[in-house]
Amino acid sequence: MADVITTRAKNYSQWYLDIVKEAGLADNSDVRGCMVIKPTGYALWEKMQRGLDRLFKDTGHVNAYFPLFIPMSFLAKEEQMAEGFAKECAVVTHYRLKAEPGKPLHVDPTAELEEPLIIRPTSETIIWNTYKKWVQSYRDLPLLINQWCNVVRWEMRTRLFLRTAEFLWQEGHTAHATAQEAEAETLQMVRVYQKFAEEWMAMPVLVGPKTDGQKFPGAVYTLCIEAMMQDGKALQAGTSHFLGQNFAKAFDVTFKDKENKEEFAWATSWGVSTRLIGGLIMTHSDDNGLVVPPRLAPLHVVIVPLGKTEAERAPSIAAAEKLAAELRALPRDDFFGYEPISVKVDATDKSPGSKFTEYEVRGVPVRVEIGPKDIEKSACVVARRDVPGKEGKQFGVPLTGAADHVAKLLRDIQAALYNRAKAFRDSRIVTANTLDEFKALFPEREEAKEAGAEPLKFVYAHWDGTKETEDRVQKEYAATIRCLPFDGPQEAGTCIFTGKPSARRVIFARAY
Amino acid sequence: MADVITTRAKNYSQWYLDIVKEAGLADNSDVRGCMVIKPTGYALWEKMQRGLDRLFKDTGHVNAYFPLFIPMSFLAKEEQMAEGFAKECAVVTHYRLKAEPGKPLHVDPTAELEEPLIIRPTSETIIWNTYKKWVQSYRDLPLLINQWCNVVRWEMRTRLFLRTAEFLWQEGHTAHATAQEAEAETLQMVRVYQKFAEEWMAMPVLVGPKTDGQKFPGAVYTLCIEAMMQDGKALQAGTSHFLGQNFAKAFDVTFKDKENKEEFAWATSWGVSTRLIGGLIMTHSDDNGLVVPPRLAPLHVVIVPLGKTEAERAPSIAAAEKLAAELRALPRDDFFGYEPISVKVDATDKSPGSKFTEYEVRGVPVRVEIGPKDIEKSACVVARRDVPGKEGKQFGVPLTGAADHVAKLLRDIQAALYNRAKAFRDSRIVTANTLDEFKALFPEREEAKEAGAEPLKFVYAHWDGTKETEDRVQKEYAATIRCLPFDGPQEAGTCIFTGKPSARRVIFARAY
Repeated sequence: MADVITTRAKNYSQWYLDIVKEAGLADNSDVRGCMVIKPTGYALWEKMQRGLDRLFKDTGHVNAYFPLFIPMSFLAKEEQMAEGFAKECAVVTHYRLKAEPGKPLHVDPTAELEEPLIIRPTSETIIWNTYKKWVQSYRDLPLLINQWCNVVRWEMRTRLFLRTAEFLWQEGHTAHATAQEAEAETLQMVRVYQKFAEEWMAMPVLVGPKTDGQKFPGAVYTLCIEAMMQDGKALQAGTSHFLGQNFAKAFDVTFKDKENKEEFAWATSWGVSTRLIGGLIMTHSDDNGLVVPPRLAPLHVVIVPLGKTEAERAPSIAAAEKLAAELRALPRDDFFGYEPISVKVDATDKSPGSKFTEYEVRGVPVRVEIGPKDIEKSACVVARRDVPGKEGKQFGVPLTGAADHVAKLLRDIQAALYNRAKAFRDSRIVTANTLDEFKALFPEREEAKEAGAEPLKFVYAHWDGTKETEDRVQKEYAATIRCLPFDGPQEAGTCIFTGKPSARRVIFARAY
Repeated sequence: MADVITTRAKNYSQWYLDIVKEAGLADNSDVRGCMVIKPTGYALWEKMQRGLDRLFKDTGHVNAYFPLFIPMSFLAKEEQMAEGFAKECAVVTHYRLKAEPGKPLHVDPTAELEEPLIIRPTSETIIWNTYKKWVQSYRDLPLLINQWCNVVRWEMRTRLFLRTAEFLWQEGHTAHATAQEAEAETLQMVRVYQKFAEEWMAMPVLVGPKTDGQKFPGAVYTLCIEAMMQDGKALQAGTSHFLGQNFAKAFDVTFKDKENKEEFAWATSWGVSTRLIGGLIMTHSDDNGLVVPPRLAPLHVVIVPLGKTEAERAPSIAAAEKLAAELRALPRDDFFGYEPISVKVDATDKSPGSKFTEYEVRGVPVRVEIGPKDIEKSACVVARRDVPGKEGKQFGVPLTGAADHVAKLLRDIQAALYNRAKAFRDSRIVTANTLDEFKALFPEREEAKEAGAEPLKFVYAHWDGTKETEDRVQKEYAATIRCLPFDGPQEAGTCIFTGKPSARRVIFARAY
């Protein structure tokens, strides 16, 4: 399969697309900008949903569902929303087609809507229009609601999972009686995203506020998690917004507080999307294919029975089925979301080599091989996907106890993937103290994309805090300020671009 | 709450709406025909999704996701689809709004799509357009794919859960190498729906084919499950379609069979929707509010600690928390989808009476009361929602073992609800051997809706098999043929409407 997947060194973008294709994750559709999420890709999303949903519920949230359609006038009510989303939305203007004899099917001109409807690009407006009915008193607060749904943003340049016109996501929308409570929620949810990214996706992230220039339209401020991909580019993986009273004011959502005083409610919103699948791919995968952390793997273990003849294979298959049953029967626990370990025995007549390659490409975390020689020793061979080749193989693992061995190995792989990704990232976070240092870190785009180019870096640098400087850096170096990490150095200094005072260093990077 | 919920005898339609409202299931939105599914309603849907999804996966299906948008030309490719859905669809014609100074936000006339996009009313066309790329050889078959998503049909008269412009559903779309295999799948899936309806929803259903007049546009035939609501009307609760080669031909999906011969693939599709929530409500609920079968209940048990003073309440609360912890810690099992039993201790300062009413309205299957007198006897009171009042209360249930007692009671309630609904339905399935008998069973619509009117019935009658007769009956009696139940009487006879020969009796009913 080395000939199927382009290496990262040769062409990183093509490597990504090859993995999406060869691992069966998604396809472009014949509808402009929309993707088809294939079964394996969707199974990943389902696992992500399960993990996130549990974290949301554990922090007191409930799910609900709001309309797909947003009346145009709703969008107009919040100025920043209208500005931010009007340019890239799908507009429903009619509600009927007409098939007349001798004419092709066409839009019925007599069925025009009085008011156009926008397909939700995000649901703040329709949800706050609803909250108006639900909130009268402080007793009705907080509202801690999440929605799993599809949204549409009419993107011109799309890329499977990372940027598509339609994508799947969750959007939390909470309403609170005080600013303090809403701000605590905003922080809590970005920490929930961090936990999910690190403990489920094994993807380390930086956490902190965005600059004003990069925040969500309608937000007072935006907190985010930012991950480093293997090309050194940043992926914004999740955002949590403190919306102040902006939406309460736009939709007139007031409540009587304990002193019977009328107040506008305070809002947050927060979301992650199928984009995370792109992040997962680019954090862990290698030149052999997809690598999936076990907690999110649709299939945990594949067992390949070996043997040259049917007579040789029969005992291998029996042992494989027995081990599979033992693995499936292990007590369900929190680590795997109370689902059984997922095991497949592949006893088809394909060659062992082609099977190994196939499951490697698809990122199955553990492969077990059982052949006649293993049977003789009541043992098996266990190969871990995160360490390809002989190095990742354990020979002579006794069949007795093999189920527990594999279950433990899955946990080890989860930890190893996180540690490896963290070491990769940490070694590529650097500081630029001068403009020359900075320039050297952001080569021309084409140069950075050349075969064999070194991964880019996350660069801490002093910045004067102005949007002008931020825009200039973006224009000149194609680098943006990803965030002001909570855990980053906080000392003041001098902006390397303008020489003006800087409150702290911020993270610059190229981004998806 | 007797004053909040209209009784069924007084006004059945209003009773339904009152329950949807008071149990917090859904709201009308400000977007025409679209509903907001509130947290409790959505929690029900999540439970349904979990149960169904497991049944789908156990029968070898996987989930995937296809675009929301369907190019108008796709709909035109299958004539019956175009006819069936063109009249009620949402059409996207533009991809941008424009905000100009001094002008309100408006549709940008320069951003018109070359080809209008339809919001999917169902996804056969977009999916079969994709299958074309996935299917080359018999080895690629079967494709056993399901999608959970939202769909839109521009309904003029809407009713929460039962008929809305946007609704949530699942749609299975399978492709097979032979007609026989596709027909077996069609039957299997309607049986899966039956199992879910009966074992999760505790809702008995009739299973069988629809008449040609009632089948899905594009289907060779449609199998369905039909349930009886408490007003004696039928609810089509799920359908499974054998699509023959219609979609394969429309989208040119061919494969090479084992003899290397080019063949069109055979198709099925099958779906259930949030409409099931309406069915659930109307199958079990009573004049006190919602009744939910335990397997689908978002909250299984509420424990209300009693006591006039804080000192009295403290030991009640302690005992309540202990019982709650014991219930949550019971081994997870298949019956509850490997989720813990969901328990809430309500120690707020509302009156016990108002709490009892609240949880009754919301349909929580079991309520436990623990007061000072119970504590003295180390006991509690256990009340089951399906039997309101004193009759459903067990006094002096020992606290030791109460968790197991309640867990068993939840199973008993599930069984009791099914048995009660089945007895209700079975007693209202009758046979009409003459037109006069038939007429008497379908009174004028207004009369049937009068306060205190008897529930309608499902009526077995001989029918000559023609669409003309079917249409006439619908026009004259507002009754339709719901299905030709597999388990119904199969003997031939004479059509009571035309005197022509009839192959078998079919079920007539008024329907939602």
